[in-house]
Amino acid sequence: MSNINEDVGKVLGQYSKDIHKEIGNTLSNIGPEDLREASIYLTEAGGKMLRPALTVLICEAVGGTFSSCIKAAAAIELIHTFSLIHDDIMDKDDMRRGKPSVHKVWGEPVAILAGDTLFSKAYELVINSKNEIDSSNPEECLNRVNRTLSTVADACVKICEGQAQDMGFEGNFDVSEEEYMEMIFKKTAALIAAATESGAIMGGANEKIVSDMYDYGKLIGLAFQIQDDYLDLVSDEDSLGKPVGSDIAEGKMTIIVVNALNRANPEDKKRILEILRMGNESGNCDQVYVDEAISLFEKYGSIQYAQNIALANVKKAKQLLEILPESEAKHTLSLVADFVLYRQN
Amino acid sequence: MSNINEDVGKVLGQYSKDIHKEIGNTLSNIGPEDLREASIYLTEAGGKMLRPALTVLICEAVGGTFSSCIKAAAAIELIHTFSLIHDDIMDKDDMRRGKPSVHKVWGEPVAILAGDTLFSKAYELVINSKNEIDSSNPEECLNRVNRTLSTVADACVKICEGQAQDMGFEGNFDVSEEEYMEMIFKKTAALIAAATESGAIMGGANEKIVSDMYDYGKLIGLAFQIQDDYLDLVSDEDSLGKPVGSDIAEGKMTIIVVNALNRANPEDKKRILEILRMGNESGNCDQVYVDEAISLFEKYGSIQYAQNIALANVKKAKQLLEILPESEAKHTLSLVADFVLYRQN
Repeated sequence: MSNINEDVGKVLGQYSKDIHKEIGNTLSNIGPEDLREASIYLTEAGGKMLRPALTVLICEAVGGTFSSCIKAAAAIELIHTFSLIHDDIMDKDDMRRGKPSVHKVWGEPVAILAGDTLFSKAYELVINSKNEIDSSNPEECLNRVNRTLSTVADACVKICEGQAQDMGFEGNFDVSEEEYMEMIFKKTAALIAAATESGAIMGGANEKIVSDMYDYGKLIGLAFQIQDDYLDLVSDEDSLGKPVGSDIAEGKMTIIVVNALNRANPEDKKRILEILRMGNESGNCDQVYVDEAISLFEKYGSIQYAQNIALANVKKAKQLLEILPESEAKHTLSLVADFVLYRQN
Repeated sequence: MSNINEDVGKVLGQYSKDIHKEIGNTLSNIGPEDLREASIYLTEAGGKMLRPALTVLICEAVGGTFSSCIKAAAAIELIHTFSLIHDDIMDKDDMRRGKPSVHKVWGEPVAILAGDTLFSKAYELVINSKNEIDSSNPEECLNRVNRTLSTVADACVKICEGQAQDMGFEGNFDVSEEEYMEMIFKKTAALIAAATESGAIMGGANEKIVSDMYDYGKLIGLAFQIQDDYLDLVSDEDSLGKPVGSDIAEGKMTIIVVNALNRANPEDKKRILEILRMGNESGNCDQVYVDEAISLFEKYGSIQYAQNIALANVKKAKQLLEILPESEAKHTLSLVADFVLYRQN
């Protein structure tokens, strides 16, 4: 397991330098200075760069060149960063990637603008990739740019909708599994799917492969979020960097909660809701209640249920890769799918 | 003069229905409900729709069809609306178009998201206009879409930069005319220039005309903002909908202030700064000081100076229209340039 983390870490690190360079180039001429610094800040705070690496890996796996997709890859990372900056304002999260959030350093107005600027710059990057695409047919180049812009814009709408749904779930525990899955698809998986689809489009893949690579991204994106919910309960404080069960302590909705509320008898359901409401109201309920909730989740098999969904998604994602010819990139994409499950944080 | 206002009002009203329809279509499927309502709200609050009308008028004046440009026109209006929603949060403005601002009705988190959603939808609209362009050459259609996206993305970056510059000017009265003009270009004129350039691109105009139409938009955009500064001092409360001199009362930087500070003797300069600082600190300084400042601006000819710049810009903008063949649309574009000066609010 630790090998997967190391191997994937190495690949992400390998692409990270080029993606950083591309991002640095496009953000360097923003003015005035405070807006430039606020826009750059989080892109240099040591994110995993998983999304842009997926774009590049898939582009290479379908036979495309690095230069065809590097700007689209950087754009996907800028969209991700924009959404983190705005989410942190909305959720009043004061820390991100171990540093004070953008709005804590520059204030909310500049943080809103920094997000908006990254958003605009992302589109500029994709548009400017027109001349870097490895095709001698100008219409084909324009078409790939256009389709990538379309998938990126679609993901952006979904990110906003998913965040709005997530905020709507706050303190409302009457959420169906379908609603929960739609929310995490929109909030998290849609951009990962856009990252993988963009790689296939920019690499010139056929329709079937483009569609399969979108689904690959969607499946590992969903697994990624479900695994987050799972790790919160089964990992340890050192690996998580936060106490076990902090989602319960904060009264957050997860796939595990949704499942337990569906399966529990009326008495247990009432108790789970009481504990979640305590968490939701206080922002941090006592560990003894957290442990009680975990026991109830275990009683109904809800923790295992979440793990099973994540596993099934990763399995399906890996099957979709079979359409690709053998290559180093394809092998890495399979490792990335496993990494989603075996990461410890 | 009142004829110009009526005539232009009629033309704007005429396009307004179709633009509203296009915007309504694209926003109708947003979920959840509160995000949809917050996103639609300001688009239905009776804006002038000047920017999208300019896109359509120029497209028609260069021989393009209405359907080629209507989605781009609607996109420009969505970008404008997005920037108003986010600006109102940043500037803590509680009213917009005679109604409570979006963040006053739905709260800041949903208002941030509504802006982001409109932003994404604007790009979707331009991308989707691909099939509506009046050209049988698919490469040409893609190229027009691509160039429009490029000008829109460039304007979006500038809007953010301009707003950041404007916030940086707050309480800082050491601003050169060059800096002030750069700020209003980015904050206001760049999107109007993108609106007019997009109309020319979508209508299939040649490079020279596209470039001239960008400049036409830029010039009337600058004149529009300078005229705002001018009207604040020379109009009357009934027309303005706010007291005369409210910019001074709030300690705001305008082209008139920049010019007066440049021209005034040390004693008058000190007095103007004192009054502006009072306004900046209190948010609303006493009318007797406002009147004193206006007298000083008159003493140095700064009010006339602003009016002259606006007049010169409009004159240049109208000259640029001479490149277009005679048409009803061309005539209206000339009226719109005059309208920028003769409007009373």
